[in-house]
Amino acid sequence: MMTKRVREILSYYDSENAGVRTNLARFLNHGRLAGSGKLVILPVDQGFEHGPARSFAVNPPAYSPLYHFQLAIDAGCSGYAAPLGFLEAGAAEFAGELPLILKLNNHDLLLDERDPISAVTGSVGDALRLGCAAVGFTIYPGSAERREMYEQLREIAEEAKQCGLAVVVWSYPRGSGLSKEGETALDVVAYAAQIAAQLGANIVKVKLPTSHLEQPEAKKVYEAQRVPLEPLAERVRHVVQSCFDGRRIVIFSGGPKEDDATLLEEVAAIKAGGGFGSIIGRNSFQRPKPAAIALLNKIMDIYAG
Amino acid sequence: MMTKRVREILSYYDSENAGVRTNLARFLNHGRLAGSGKLVILPVDQGFEHGPARSFAVNPPAYSPLYHFQLAIDAGCSGYAAPLGFLEAGAAEFAGELPLILKLNNHDLLLDERDPISAVTGSVGDALRLGCAAVGFTIYPGSAERREMYEQLREIAEEAKQCGLAVVVWSYPRGSGLSKEGETALDVVAYAAQIAAQLGANIVKVKLPTSHLEQPEAKKVYEAQRVPLEPLAERVRHVVQSCFDGRRIVIFSGGPKEDDATLLEEVAAIKAGGGFGSIIGRNSFQRPKPAAIALLNKIMDIYAG
Amino acid sequence: MMTKRVREILSYYDSENAGVRTNLARFLNHGRLAGSGKLVILPVDQGFEHGPARSFAVNPPAYSPLYHFQLAIDAGCSGYAAPLGFLEAGAAEFAGELPLILKLNNHDLLLDERDPISAVTGSVGDALRLGCAAVGFTIYPGSAERREMYEQLREIAEEAKQCGLAVVVWSYPRGSGLSKEGETALDVVAYAAQIAAQLGANIVKVKLPTSHLEQPEAKKVYEAQRVPLEPLAERVRHVVQSCFDGRRIVIFSGGPKEDDATLLEEVAAIKAGGGFGSIIGRNSFQRPKPAAIALLNKIMDIYAG
Amino acid sequence: MMTKRVREILSYYDSENAGVRTNLARFLNHGRLAGSGKLVILPVDQGFEHGPARSFAVNPPAYSPLYHFQLAIDAGCSGYAAPLGFLEAGAAEFAGELPLILKLNNHDLLLDERDPISAVTGSVGDALRLGCAAVGFTIYPGSAERREMYEQLREIAEEAKQCGLAVVVWSYPRGSGLSKEGETALDVVAYAAQIAAQLGANIVKVKLPTSHLEQPEAKKVYEAQRVPLEPLAERVRHVVQSCFDGRRIVIFSGGPKEDDATLLEEVAAIKAGGGFGSIIGRNSFQRPKPAAIALLNKIMDIYAG
Amino acid sequence: MMTKRVREILSYYDSENAGVRTNLARFLNHGRLAGSGKLVILPVDQGFEHGPARSFAVNPPAYSPLYHFQLAIDAGCSGYAAPLGFLEAGAAEFAGELPLILKLNNHDLLLDERDPISAVTGSVGDALRLGCAAVGFTIYPGSAERREMYEQLREIAEEAKQCGLAVVVWSYPRGSGLSKEGETALDVVAYAAQIAAQLGANIVKVKLPTSHLEQPEAKKVYEAQRVPLEPLAERVRHVVQSCFDGRRIVIFSGGPKEDDATLLEEVAAIKAGGGFGSIIGRNSFQRPKPAAIALLNKIMDIYAG
Repeated sequence: MMTKRVREILSYYDSENAGVRTNLARFLNHGRLAGSGKLVILPVDQGFEHGPARSFAVNPPAYSPLYHFQLAIDAGCSGYAAPLGFLEAGAAEFAGELPLILKLNNHDLLLDERDPISAVTGSVGDALRLGCAAVGFTIYPGSAERREMYEQLREIAEEAKQCGLAVVVWSYPRGSGLSKEGETALDVVAYAAQIAAQLGANIVKVKLPTSHLEQPEAKKVYEAQRVPLEPLAERVRHVVQSCFDGRRIVIFSGGPKEDDATLLEEVAAIKAGGGFGSIIGRNSFQRPKPAAIALLNKIMDIYAG
Repeated sequence: MMTKRVREILSYYDSENAGVRTNLARFLNHGRLAGSGKLVILPVDQGFEHGPARSFAVNPPAYSPLYHFQLAIDAGCSGYAAPLGFLEAGAAEFAGELPLILKLNNHDLLLDERDPISAVTGSVGDALRLGCAAVGFTIYPGSAERREMYEQLREIAEEAKQCGLAVVVWSYPRGSGLSKEGETALDVVAYAAQIAAQLGANIVKVKLPTSHLEQPEAKKVYEAQRVPLEPLAERVRHVVQSCFDGRRIVIFSGGPKEDDATLLEEVAAIKAGGGFGSIIGRNSFQRPKPAAIALLNKIMDIYAG
Repeated sequence: MMTKRVREILSYYDSENAGVRTNLARFLNHGRLAGSGKLVILPVDQGFEHGPARSFAVNPPAYSPLYHFQLAIDAGCSGYAAPLGFLEAGAAEFAGELPLILKLNNHDLLLDERDPISAVTGSVGDALRLGCAAVGFTIYPGSAERREMYEQLREIAEEAKQCGLAVVVWSYPRGSGLSKEGETALDVVAYAAQIAAQLGANIVKVKLPTSHLEQPEAKKVYEAQRVPLEPLAERVRHVVQSCFDGRRIVIFSGGPKEDDATLLEEVAAIKAGGGFGSIIGRNSFQRPKPAAIALLNKIMDIYAG
Repeated sequence: MMTKRVREILSYYDSENAGVRTNLARFLNHGRLAGSGKLVILPVDQGFEHGPARSFAVNPPAYSPLYHFQLAIDAGCSGYAAPLGFLEAGAAEFAGELPLILKLNNHDLLLDERDPISAVTGSVGDALRLGCAAVGFTIYPGSAERREMYEQLREIAEEAKQCGLAVVVWSYPRGSGLSKEGETALDVVAYAAQIAAQLGANIVKVKLPTSHLEQPEAKKVYEAQRVPLEPLAERVRHVVQSCFDGRRIVIFSGGPKEDDATLLEEVAAIKAGGGFGSIIGRNSFQRPKPAAIALLNKIMDIYAG
Repeated sequence: MMTKRVREILSYYDSENAGVRTNLARFLNHGRLAGSGKLVILPVDQGFEHGPARSFAVNPPAYSPLYHFQLAIDAGCSGYAAPLGFLEAGAAEFAGELPLILKLNNHDLLLDERDPISAVTGSVGDALRLGCAAVGFTIYPGSAERREMYEQLREIAEEAKQCGLAVVVWSYPRGSGLSKEGETALDVVAYAAQIAAQLGANIVKVKLPTSHLEQPEAKKVYEAQRVPLEPLAERVRHVVQSCFDGRRIVIFSGGPKEDDATLLEEVAAIKAGGGFGSIIGRNSFQRPKPAAIALLNKIMDIYAG
């Protein structure tokens, strides 16, 4: 049964066809947070992005692609996102058990670039044949390669939506246009979220912003208009506002493994600021499965509370 | 009912198919200036081009994409232009209420380039599914990337016209071929307007030119032929002339927020010089809605007067 | 009725389909030189190539695209060539009144490059919908970008010929491979004409060559074989020979406005050397219309004489 | 008859269509190792990759493309892989005699690059018309050109799988991101294997890794988690684990000609570590045919034992 | 009637469709060498490659494209190869009189590059509409642009073969990977021939190799395996061996005009070494037609002898 909040969220997407709205509803109505309007998604692309040992050696069962499907199911996540190979290896076995996101581009660390761009590693056709509910795509605003990424996303998003798939965009500021600190600056994260939404993302994923302000012209406005920089919940609220005043789902990533108390505080701030949820990768699969499920459940409890 | 002036303007486009002419007529026959042959259009792409806080923090309701549809309707604008995300977020709710322009390329400020080029961020297919009357495209004559932009525009314009959509071109001189002052020089703006018209634009949008002359070879001709550089109305007239002797609609942008008196004087000069209207972005949505409507109405009064 | 000379010229193109030959015949059988085997064509792409004021301020009626159609008709030219916008603005009004050439690529001067390449600004589909008899394309042999231009031309020529359109190639040596003087050197112009013909051009357009020889290896041969460098008619003859021994139509451009006596002498030399005609732009539209018609008629008299 | 082990391996590929699984089964059920779940494949692309004399002068009958088909058949190999020309020269004569892999990209040594990328030298259509069971593709993780290679592979793999062909990926770390020693470092080889599997490879081919660790961030994890670096069998096991915990076929190459004892020890280690087999090129065709068959049989004996 | 030798040669191409084999047979069964298994082909692309005067001024009738068709016919050549324009100018008139090869890429000398790449100047569709039996394509192994050339060839070859056209590859080592002397070194020429054959060429064309060895790694092998470097016939034999042990037709070019005695000695060496024939351009059309026919007949006498 469709809750009022889910119905409200879906109404933000009334220019999309029924297929896209159906697939958005699948995420919003799946797992322990079903119906709440909140999402907790399990992403596992670190095997490609950081290498297998760095990702899985600490918890060797996680080398198996089947492990993550089961983890997402057992923990009651809203969905599971991974690159082509990982989904190919389990999509048939777990067919219909949870909504999947095929990550359509990926980047490795075997060569360091100042202006990164991910390789396109899957297609909308792959997502369809694997029974996915959405495609995922990463952009790096601030990279000299951003134009190519935006244009790749545009083409993929158009095709995906025509096929009724939802579009999830990882928007990670990075590259020669930004300082290291600037990658998570409030103005930059809000800008990156806006760009993703303008590019047609149905779900936007960003990192939690710091109170740093990177761009001088933006800083003037934040100061003049007294946009609050503290506490974190206010920064979340600003990012939500920057996603079409809350009319686009925006979720936040946990980043590297950190202590659980901090993580749970962050989740509380996301909730307080009106964020739509979390995407929890390394903090879940880099610990034994029971501990991962326990943590994910605590997170979901906060969102559900 | 079709006025004589609108009929005359449409006759300039007699090589276009009925679809394009119908959509041009929709702009010319919509809002408070309907039938006058003049246009005032609301463009809101600054969330992408400058970032959300710089664009909307001064008037927070403007973070919502719905705000701008309503503002354009309430003020009686001739049309509303925005990137994909902003139109997707309101096109269904406001379907049929005013003519829309989908901006098909956009540029952000998270990396500074000497030779800018916008990313293609939408398609003709997107414009059709969102019920738009036109597509918009920005070119930067003077940029080392201009060839790619012209060729992208050519392809998009051909496809758009085949689908009966009108083509609006933002022609903004910029890049390593020009000094900063040269970007708004009379010779350069007139040249940029000519290029847009030659590329098949139905509606050309340029900035108001200064009396500066940038290119030595052009300067010789302006001096020899005594092309008047003052007052502003004469410069507008020269740009209109450079748009096929007035046989292409050319409208002028207001630029950054400025005091209203100056802005209204400029509008009067555009009218006096034979310009077809204005495109008013930051000067409208960066103030409270009633004030914006008041200003837009004053502008329309001048054009209608 | 088809003259013997036109029939002979058409026989050179016996590998082309009936559509291409029909369109070639339209140029050869139109205007005051109809049936003579000679052509005088009016080209107006300077608005794009040099800017509007530099092109039209000296004769302001020429700002209007309609002006040039009428000039070409009134003067009895064999055809009229212009970029997309200029043809779109008059093709319907003047439909069927004279053979049109759509210039499919263009270059502006808002940025100076050492190795120029024009932007593709129109399509074969545009030429068809505008009722053109031919497409025009510019290549710059000697530019580091020449490979891309040749390949663009190849694709366009194949498509155009399949649609029965004739292909006119402007072959202008330019770029880092050549000295300024070398751009009009006899060996270089003859080479550029040969390249255009080998690329499948039906009509080749080059500048009148000087007696300079640019390339050392070529110079040796010109000297050893005593290829005559003077007078101009001999150089024209060499270019005609380099266009498949006269089996491809080659016409010559007038270049910048010059005094009429010189221009007419050049025309006489073109005729004496076996050239197929002239393409006269700035020397026609940059003077009042009656004067332009008078000059064009003198030129045609020479060719017809 | 299908063995239990082959059935198990095929179950790992249950997201693939019946065509791909059928072709995987053809390799697993062909030659002396049929049914064992192990593979020994003959690859002969050295004529392209190193030049003909360096490849074949030591054993001149190998200049003939027919030689290698016969060698693979006589030795009881699981399949034979070669570039377009070599397969075109024998595919009709040996039609149906053994499963073929068309190598779809190749690289020559006539120019040295720091960041190599192979040229695409064949198509899925070629593989189909030549009766192949699989396509092969080489990627160089670590090269600045890797993004293009991954994207080429993605497109080819999608098309190949749609046509029921299996996809074999040679994943050879190389390029400016890596030291020479790093190309075979354990962390790098495991990472390269993971990338290939994530890109959708059905069969992954890597070099045997050394105990060197290249990337500082990875090294920390290998040390912290005590991933065993010795003996070779443990390194093989780690690579197998990095290929989706053994759910993707991974085979190992023999590299340059080495003494047979070493080679056989390596094969024993591959078997002990859970590897799926070997690909033996220069160590087979660079010796007289009877000696090659003898060696290959010894290798197969180890795998079958 | 099909001779035994022609039947044998065609058997090497038994993976090709009937169309390709039919067209190969047309060359092998045409002209004075019909049935012998030897070929003498007339190529005339120098107008594009070197310029018209350097190519034809010494024998002015050769400016006409008709001249070369007639020369090839009168001399009894096996076929005639030329770029698009030259074939367009005579293909209809000489339809069906001799097998034609359309050269699909060409390069000019108006700009010097260290790493050359030819422009694609024709298409398979052009070859079909002109009634050709084959397409020709030039690659420059050793050039930094070689990857693009190989990939262009791959696409063209696939399309040509699907249409039943034979594929002739000019493989000329050149570019920053090679010394000037290395361009004709035995190891390099043999390598270039191998690459062409691996890329799917039906007929390979290379220059006659010198006894120089360019690549150190290759040199070691030539010395260790005592590959004979003298006389020329041995070098020809090595190249033939490198073309799949004689299972691909390989022919040799004459290079710049040289004295006839040397040329005829070279032809004798080609024959002695098992080469399949010659391609004779400047040595034929740069002398009066009777002398050219006389020389070509002497060459054919050697091959036929």
